[in-house]
Amino acid sequence: MLVANRGEIAVRIIRAARELGIESVQVYSEADVDSLAVKLADKAVCIGPPKAAKSYLNIDAIMTVAKKEKVDAIHPGYGFLSENAEFADAVVKAGMIFVGPSGLIMRKMGDKATAKQTAKQAGVPTVPGSDGRVESLDVATAVAAEIGYPVMIKASAGGGGRGIRIAKSLDELAEQFHPAQAEAAAAFGDGGLYVEKLITGSRHIEFQLLADGKRAVHLFERECSLQRRRQKVWEEAPSAVLSPSVRAEMGKAAAALAESVGYCGAGTVEYLYNEKNGEFYFIEMNTRIQVEHPATEWITGVDLVREMILVADGNPLPFTQDELAIKGHAIEVRINAEDPTKDFMPFPGKVENLSIPQGPGVRFDSLLYPGYAISPFYDSLLGKLIVWDTDRDKAIARLDRALTELSIGGVKTTKPLFVALSRDPDVQAGRFDTKWLEGWLSNYGEMLDDSDILDDAVTDDATTDDEQDALPAHTMRA
Amino acid sequence: MLVANRGEIAVRIIRAARELGIESVQVYSEADVDSLAVKLADKAVCIGPPKAAKSYLNIDAIMTVAKKEKVDAIHPGYGFLSENAEFADAVVKAGMIFVGPSGLIMRKMGDKATAKQTAKQAGVPTVPGSDGRVESLDVATAVAAEIGYPVMIKASAGGGGRGIRIAKSLDELAEQFHPAQAEAAAAFGDGGLYVEKLITGSRHIEFQLLADGKRAVHLFERECSLQRRRQKVWEEAPSAVLSPSVRAEMGKAAAALAESVGYCGAGTVEYLYNEKNGEFYFIEMNTRIQVEHPATEWITGVDLVREMILVADGNPLPFTQDELAIKGHAIEVRINAEDPTKDFMPFPGKVENLSIPQGPGVRFDSLLYPGYAISPFYDSLLGKLIVWDTDRDKAIARLDRALTELSIGGVKTTKPLFVALSRDPDVQAGRFDTKWLEGWLSNYGEMLDDSDILDDAVTDDATTDDEQDALPAHTMRA
Repeated sequence: MLVANRGEIAVRIIRAARELGIESVQVYSEADVDSLAVKLADKAVCIGPPKAAKSYLNIDAIMTVAKKEKVDAIHPGYGFLSENAEFADAVVKAGMIFVGPSGLIMRKMGDKATAKQTAKQAGVPTVPGSDGRVESLDVATAVAAEIGYPVMIKASAGGGGRGIRIAKSLDELAEQFHPAQAEAAAAFGDGGLYVEKLITGSRHIEFQLLADGKRAVHLFERECSLQRRRQKVWEEAPSAVLSPSVRAEMGKAAAALAESVGYCGAGTVEYLYNEKNGEFYFIEMNTRIQVEHPATEWITGVDLVREMILVADGNPLPFTQDELAIKGHAIEVRINAEDPTKDFMPFPGKVENLSIPQGPGVRFDSLLYPGYAISPFYDSLLGKLIVWDTDRDKAIARLDRALTELSIGGVKTTKPLFVALSRDPDVQAGRFDTKWLEGWLSNYGEMLDDSDILDDAVTDDATTDDEQDALPAHTMRA
Repeated sequence: MLVANRGEIAVRIIRAARELGIESVQVYSEADVDSLAVKLADKAVCIGPPKAAKSYLNIDAIMTVAKKEKVDAIHPGYGFLSENAEFADAVVKAGMIFVGPSGLIMRKMGDKATAKQTAKQAGVPTVPGSDGRVESLDVATAVAAEIGYPVMIKASAGGGGRGIRIAKSLDELAEQFHPAQAEAAAAFGDGGLYVEKLITGSRHIEFQLLADGKRAVHLFERECSLQRRRQKVWEEAPSAVLSPSVRAEMGKAAAALAESVGYCGAGTVEYLYNEKNGEFYFIEMNTRIQVEHPATEWITGVDLVREMILVADGNPLPFTQDELAIKGHAIEVRINAEDPTKDFMPFPGKVENLSIPQGPGVRFDSLLYPGYAISPFYDSLLGKLIVWDTDRDKAIARLDRALTELSIGGVKTTKPLFVALSRDPDVQAGRFDTKWLEGWLSNYGEMLDDSDILDDAVTDDATTDDEQDALPAHTMRA
């Protein structure tokens, strides 16, 4: 199996392959010659220069290696080509297994307006808004009048919180519509827009799915409301606030959506959840493994990366919905090479010493080893610290303990942010929505230089497509 | 809380304390000034020179620190003073909490002949043999005639497979009885002996217990049949061969025994199990946490070190027997600083590089950090690699994967032994008894110099008191 990715997820995939007795071929850019994935893989082949467009996004280069090495399958990880329908098609056309859904399904779910329509048809509640694409300002105005301001103007091909504008009035809508069209065309090669109501005060709750093309099950939710600039930083499973009945309803809707399109593989349905009235709205579906999948793995005991490989290979799902249950509580925090005292500026460098937390209920999935030089070419994710315990309070105490053991010498990381969050009364009580962290960061005081934090328009549409993790750091910060 | 131990278990206890919000005071010998436990503890106090008798076994020195630091409790770990009734008494007398059972219960269970009697009274099957101590050769002869040869002559105060002789006939019994008495008196300060039937071809299966003084529950079994010189090297939970009904019966008997003595704390009832006829026999009860406790933690989700602290503090057990269930399969292997190609000769040294396995289902509880100089004064246990997966086959595949990621530069370890075992057809099929590993080692071929391996009398009474872990390495190898 060829691993068409880098960083911690490449390592994760190599591990799953090894446990299944599958040999791994790691492709890598010149910048990653010393990476952990290259060291751990059975074979590694360089596919180009550091720039992602010339290596990790280079379909031709990857397919050339795949054919030369006669691989049976390709795992795309997250980000990069993982949601690229052309790539999925090319893999299948070459007679190989693409570990993910078909290009057809990807196109259906990748276009946000189409995905929303599909969800609506499958009976999944969606945010009030246009039925699909809005081709003119007149139509947009009519939709906004019906659903009420404020509204969001979203690029149909956007993702990860990109390509979103907010209009609080007719004037603002009129002013922003055409520039939004032009921007979407420039950024995503597709000027399609849609309009939906701006939902405030809600939480980001997503359901993990596994499907074999015929049957789909959900593996309960992860809550990812703690976000900075629409980037998830702290993810937990289950949510602190979901009732069993709402959980069942949201999960059932997510699985029904996947079944309605004959989905195969791992996927995630993202919702906004309104804690006050119990309503939830479909945001989007991600047709790949997510960064935060380990939280779900720990509460369900299901190895998601293994299972997505098995269903891609034609195996039926090995369990029914009834056989799945939540045990305990898991939290994942993203340890990034960023300086939290300097507005999370990327901080590449050489890892001098490395102390990894151990003991019960602690997992650290990372790309680090002592002496590793963190590349400035890619995202700043160094590793994911995941903890599990029997309940949420204990999991937070364990996170705090594990963080005290984590030491990455030579670089600045987001560790201090998580130490502070794990001791925060609101976080401990589960009192937050998708806006909470930005507000908290603005009051973080001496630890943070927050002059730059509120530059971004902060909305509640906190989708956080992990795709951004794969972009160069300067893009992430833009 | 004072941690009256060293090595990985001291680290384990400090972690549990931290998660409970309890400050830790680590006592240490001069040899352990640079140890991980000393680095991680909230406070550390030197109690003497490297020799255990002058530090970790020095009750006066430890109690002096405990009083000076005004600690509320003392955790003894395993080995050293963990089963020393005098120490438990001294702690309680000083008004502190001893994290373990009372000295009274320890005495009851520490004397093997008495423990066997207690077990018998609680309805737990015991190995046919004498009713308690045997004071004369005449009585021993009568017992042997009744139960049949071969028999074992065991020191009542012995443990960990020490103080055991085998007699295959009346002549051998007559020849060995008085020397055994003298040897027991010299080694354990108590010449008491008892006689029991030598059971062959059996497996070592032990049940984890937790009790609060009133109620006791079992947390299912660990199988520890893979032993070298009566030292456990590979432990797993659950056993590959136990049926649910036998499991329930053995567990119920173990919990009944604990309740019969008003047990409080974590403990383990060790059995010999005859796979052919489903019979099981009580061997002994260990009144402390065991080295292999993480295997149980993983299949039950119960943090044993945390729970033993909570019950010691007067809390009732937080669950009933019915609330406990087995999920998946866990395997622990002991990574020792020993050269498996040189008859497991201890191999102290400086750890140059350290690569710790990560990813799903992997835990590594160790005393290591890069640059740590392994002390020659204590046992050779560097760490315990524990893996979990949904079933035994997958757990073995995961162990193999994790072992390939483990690298401890600068010292030789037992890692190659476990790589070979995880790929062995008998191990994979669960086909082994307590003699199997010694036989396997004698055929291990080029990897091992086995000239010394079969010097020991190999019997099936594979108790493996972990106490030996705390003895100087030369004692272990003697």
